[in-house]
Amino acid sequence: MNEIRPIQWTDGRLHLLDQTRLPAEEVTVTVTRYEEAVDAIREMRVRGAPAIGVTAAYAMAMAARDIGDGGPENFASLLEQAATRIKAARPTAVNLGWAVDRMLRAAAPGSGARDIAERLLAEAQEIQREDEAVNRRMGDFGKDLMPDGGSVLTHCNTGALATSAFGTALGVIRAGWEFGKRFEVFNTETRPWLQGARLTSWEFQKLGIPATLMADSAAGMLMRQGRIGCVITGADRIAANGDTANKIGTYSLAVLAKEHGIPFYVAAPISTIDLSLPDGDGIEIEERAPEEVTRFGGVRTAPEGVAAVNPAFDVTPHRYISAIVTECGVASAPYAESLLLAVRGGR
Amino acid sequence: MNEIRPIQWTDGRLHLLDQTRLPAEEVTVTVTRYEEAVDAIREMRVRGAPAIGVTAAYAMAMAARDIGDGGPENFASLLEQAATRIKAARPTAVNLGWAVDRMLRAAAPGSGARDIAERLLAEAQEIQREDEAVNRRMGDFGKDLMPDGGSVLTHCNTGALATSAFGTALGVIRAGWEFGKRFEVFNTETRPWLQGARLTSWEFQKLGIPATLMADSAAGMLMRQGRIGCVITGADRIAANGDTANKIGTYSLAVLAKEHGIPFYVAAPISTIDLSLPDGDGIEIEERAPEEVTRFGGVRTAPEGVAAVNPAFDVTPHRYISAIVTECGVASAPYAESLLLAVRGGR
Repeated sequence: MNEIRPIQWTDGRLHLLDQTRLPAEEVTVTVTRYEEAVDAIREMRVRGAPAIGVTAAYAMAMAARDIGDGGPENFASLLEQAATRIKAARPTAVNLGWAVDRMLRAAAPGSGARDIAERLLAEAQEIQREDEAVNRRMGDFGKDLMPDGGSVLTHCNTGALATSAFGTALGVIRAGWEFGKRFEVFNTETRPWLQGARLTSWEFQKLGIPATLMADSAAGMLMRQGRIGCVITGADRIAANGDTANKIGTYSLAVLAKEHGIPFYVAAPISTIDLSLPDGDGIEIEERAPEEVTRFGGVRTAPEGVAAVNPAFDVTPHRYISAIVTECGVASAPYAESLLLAVRGGR
Repeated sequence: MNEIRPIQWTDGRLHLLDQTRLPAEEVTVTVTRYEEAVDAIREMRVRGAPAIGVTAAYAMAMAARDIGDGGPENFASLLEQAATRIKAARPTAVNLGWAVDRMLRAAAPGSGARDIAERLLAEAQEIQREDEAVNRRMGDFGKDLMPDGGSVLTHCNTGALATSAFGTALGVIRAGWEFGKRFEVFNTETRPWLQGARLTSWEFQKLGIPATLMADSAAGMLMRQGRIGCVITGADRIAANGDTANKIGTYSLAVLAKEHGIPFYVAAPISTIDLSLPDGDGIEIEERAPEEVTRFGGVRTAPEGVAAVNPAFDVTPHRYISAIVTECGVASAPYAESLLLAVRGGR
């Protein structure tokens, strides 16, 4: 299959496939300084929890290199400052903080600034390699959940574009398909940012997996008609009890799935699990600009002056989730136990 | 308040506020022949079940006039042909067939073609006058359901633009507000056609009622946060048992409302009740062009060649509906009885 590589490090620079321009144009933005990586995350040129983590790791490597080049005395505190700025780029996906903290740990043992910078670049590359391997393992575990002859609905984008390669929930669908299972695939357009219409439809097309797009609001009707066999989504942060923050609309799909007796699955790497939070109430939900709702592609859809709410994520309580696919296996309820085991297995 | 009159008959012509151009431009299309009215309904220049009914009535009046002008022998059969074409413009809203049948009944007593044409124009004007009166009566009954200090969510557009004036569900919200109740108003953008963002936000702004726009998929999260006190929508067809066809996404909102213990109300005139259907299974659901989903504001969002489903309506089973507001009072379960009583009272 056609592999999509949205994040590439070459010649000391980070090349990001600009996800604000897809599917109309395949444009690569080149990032040379960590501040530009922060902007790229904030502007969603790169998005998806694992992809944000990988980008943040490279941002840390660039920060270490640039600080090191200046050769200052206070290398460690400047790197901490960069880490704080990178972590603040977006609040909900825990993979961002996870990657930055891992990079800080890799920087910890004292040695020359140049040594640390080299070590951090190697660590970022390792995080990226691991991400792809983790996704393929999730696909391997998750493919057993995919139906043969039924149908699957997914939300937002959780494919190669949201990761380093392969994907999480989309990776599970792909793994099922590559295993030879055949099932109908539906994907929501995912308002307001249209990750589904713009990115997921594009990925399925590249992969040669036939998929049918729908408005987010059509999911209930299709479930009632028996046209949806299961739902699988990614995650931006999973609390210790299994409560899952993911793209706005995920919770509505989970409630609808429960009402129709349809399994609702989540696929996410261990790095998405945040054991520091007992439940989903503590997850910060990013509120994005109202213009994402009142405009599209430069076209105003609502009248001037209309107020809009635009939460980018919602939290699905664990009781709606049938299983969580990780690279250490498929966790099921009670999640407080199964996720703890998965995290121990994965670290 | 600023009255919106989307359908106006003057100088022997029908003037329609073009709802495909709002809110960017307030453009009126002038219709002189019944076939143009059919096109205007099909292209959604005029939409909303009651507004379609009123437009269909004027279309019948124009058909009778134009047939009469030609003075053919077979006036009755030509009028029947026009009726069939008008009824076929859109399949789901029963008000269309209801209005056309009422016009045919008004044409029935034999007399000169010119007499019949005059009688049909008077009947169309009467249907339009009645529609406004009916909406105001629904508002009067429904305002008691509106909270004082809470919040209301509505879907699609059910205001003056969807009717002759005042509106159904939006009319109930307006009536509550005019009565002096104060509550927060939320409205969905209503993908794919954006009736909420384009039309409902525009109407609330004209009415001076503060309203907050949201993506359809945000409703679940806001309900879970306790920010939605009740939901009220319109209807395109209500079966004898209360099962209700309405804009795609209505069913999802009804399931979410039930899950959160939030009342879910429908507001619709008696002309929307179709006692010929025992339940919602018999309601034909219009499937519209996939381009409504794969494009957004004229801009392509999904890649070329992507398949899309685009059901324009869904059916909400009666068990999710807390009450149905009609011009004859507020019907509650069991609807098989209460709707029958309402229909008898209203005819």
